[in-house]
Amino acid sequence: MKSGIIGYYSTRFGELWERSLFDLVEESIRELLKDSKVDISRVDAIFFGNMLGGIIENNLHASAKLAEILGIHIPIFHTEAACASGGMAFHLAHNYVQSGKGKTVLVVGAEKMNDSSPEQITQALMSAASGEEQECGLTFPGLYALMAREYLSKYHYTKKHLAAVSVKNHLHALNNPTAQFQREITEEMVLQSPLVADPLGLLDSSPITDGAASVLISSDQALLKKGKSATILSSEIATDSISLMRRKSITGIEATQIAAQKAFKEARLTPADIQVAELHDCFTIAELMAMEDIGFWKRGEAGKRAGEYETLFSNGGNLIVNTSGGLKAAGHPVGATGIKQIGELYLQLTGQAKKRQIKKVRHGLAQNVGGSGGTAVVTILGI
Amino acid sequence: MKSGIIGYYSTRFGELWERSLFDLVEESIRELLKDSKVDISRVDAIFFGNMLGGIIENNLHASAKLAEILGIHIPIFHTEAACASGGMAFHLAHNYVQSGKGKTVLVVGAEKMNDSSPEQITQALMSAASGEEQECGLTFPGLYALMAREYLSKYHYTKKHLAAVSVKNHLHALNNPTAQFQREITEEMVLQSPLVADPLGLLDSSPITDGAASVLISSDQALLKKGKSATILSSEIATDSISLMRRKSITGIEATQIAAQKAFKEARLTPADIQVAELHDCFTIAELMAMEDIGFWKRGEAGKRAGEYETLFSNGGNLIVNTSGGLKAAGHPVGATGIKQIGELYLQLTGQAKKRQIKKVRHGLAQNVGGSGGTAVVTILGI
Repeated sequence: MKSGIIGYYSTRFGELWERSLFDLVEESIRELLKDSKVDISRVDAIFFGNMLGGIIENNLHASAKLAEILGIHIPIFHTEAACASGGMAFHLAHNYVQSGKGKTVLVVGAEKMNDSSPEQITQALMSAASGEEQECGLTFPGLYALMAREYLSKYHYTKKHLAAVSVKNHLHALNNPTAQFQREITEEMVLQSPLVADPLGLLDSSPITDGAASVLISSDQALLKKGKSATILSSEIATDSISLMRRKSITGIEATQIAAQKAFKEARLTPADIQVAELHDCFTIAELMAMEDIGFWKRGEAGKRAGEYETLFSNGGNLIVNTSGGLKAAGHPVGATGIKQIGELYLQLTGQAKKRQIKKVRHGLAQNVGGSGGTAVVTILGI
Repeated sequence: MKSGIIGYYSTRFGELWERSLFDLVEESIRELLKDSKVDISRVDAIFFGNMLGGIIENNLHASAKLAEILGIHIPIFHTEAACASGGMAFHLAHNYVQSGKGKTVLVVGAEKMNDSSPEQITQALMSAASGEEQECGLTFPGLYALMAREYLSKYHYTKKHLAAVSVKNHLHALNNPTAQFQREITEEMVLQSPLVADPLGLLDSSPITDGAASVLISSDQALLKKGKSATILSSEIATDSISLMRRKSITGIEATQIAAQKAFKEARLTPADIQVAELHDCFTIAELMAMEDIGFWKRGEAGKRAGEYETLFSNGGNLIVNTSGGLKAAGHPVGATGIKQIGELYLQLTGQAKKRQIKKVRHGLAQNVGGSGGTAVVTILGI
């Protein structure tokens, strides 16, 4: 069944001290429906991606909270897959429409992270890792630092090659009005930023962010024709061992590789067909690995090619990556990230990306990762 | 697409001090696959219902944990809807098969509750209620006590009418080897049990339970023919305001009413067609309301008819309720409950319920409730 995305709304991403989790969720839903000119009565179901509401604020059972806020009785589903919670919600919403169970389905992802202390949020985020990784004192910067060290060592790159990812994504965020950071940085600033977990510095790391993002999926031909829509060509999920020590390799994420292969096959496309991608750059190393895992670049090439800023908007290459600013500069409100990525592709594919609009864009790809790579969701949209 | 349940396994329900959450999950999956003679390689996806892993043990990202335990890379989805987490997982798994995305899908629900102190678990369970209900000091027994007081007052019943539900379900559990309690009780014992929240006593309340339960859904005709299968006629979800004070009525659960109406319509059946039901008796009052909400009994009749033990197995009526022992006597490991209910129907419909086997059973109904009624899942199976 042909279905498409017919609308997208994102709140501001940032330190939103005066807003609660459900303030943000409500804003993103109401504004999306208003922008899309779709009444709530036409929505058949809602999928909600959120990771930390339970741990941080003893806040579960979002289905009923949303029913109360919106005054509705429709099916509402909460899904969780750590930082891939949003991508998973989108994937299930897409299947829900494909099954014919609903015609028009809303997907919302959100996270409220700044109300916790740094120690609390660091510990809460480790709920995405294995018990043994939690108990030995690892943190997420630590886990990605292990991958980064191995990658740099294996392919003879330096921190400078990582830094280029951050510089590029900060440049992109300058043109995204909802991004957390709208500030240009230099490679030198990344290299001199305080070390979080060697070789990753503060400016290699995505921030702690509050925010919510929503998209509307529909198979209703009238709605698809009414406004601007992007077609969902494929959405695939794969999983892997939660513990880094139980993976085949730590210089790539096998779950991304599997999900991407399946997504390209389903969409009948190859990496060369993609002009815009939103990749899960929770740390700079993650974008390098993703470029290789998805097959945009060959194994071991990413350090060099990232260092040459091939995927920077202003360089006008065949593939631009993270026009939103990525997780690094747009911010990473965990549950919202997977939805924001897909929303960014929607804006690009429908010509609504304004200052950051890529010309001649036909296909976009989003990659959303849970934890250190135990879950990956790859989604391909077309026009 | 015709799909059915081809297998069910439940661990023992109870205080399982020596077992972890994922010990129980693993047992239920491995034993189900062994019993069903289905290799893990034939499973296309897993849906996992769990409420409290994040809050109680900082344990999220179950997709990757399960991938590691089982050595697989398939899509694995974690869903949460408070005490309806299992029913929601089943509902989404059923849609997944209906969408054609997977042919054979495993659904597992689990909860590990006894490792927390009574205070911790009471607070964690309140994550299923609204912020205002949490802040004013309500507990779940308190919320259901408000409903019970209103029901008893409105229809002129007494605590004795509530007690009959508990006595019946304890009698049923005597014949369920995985039930937490295998002990006959009397109405007098229920009435004299310590008050938890007036009018509900300890023996009106479901216990704190550890356990896991799994079912296997398939649309693979070869698998459906190979073993004993029950057909999924419908599975419907509805939601309502999370706060009791924002509901139209508190002597019934509107989400159950809506989900049941939709489920009967989809299955082209009426309440009179059901011979066996598993209802969400977290407290005795909940079973009375469910009998009326689903339409088995008329509004206001439930107290009287429950008091006459119409739905007790040994009375051989047209409809037997909670042959498993219900949440009250079989136990209520939150995420597992919705799966156990459906599994019990599967056993009844395929003639595998042994000592508690109902004769001439054609259709079964399960009702799984989240929180105080903010979410309800109603599933109808046939043979």
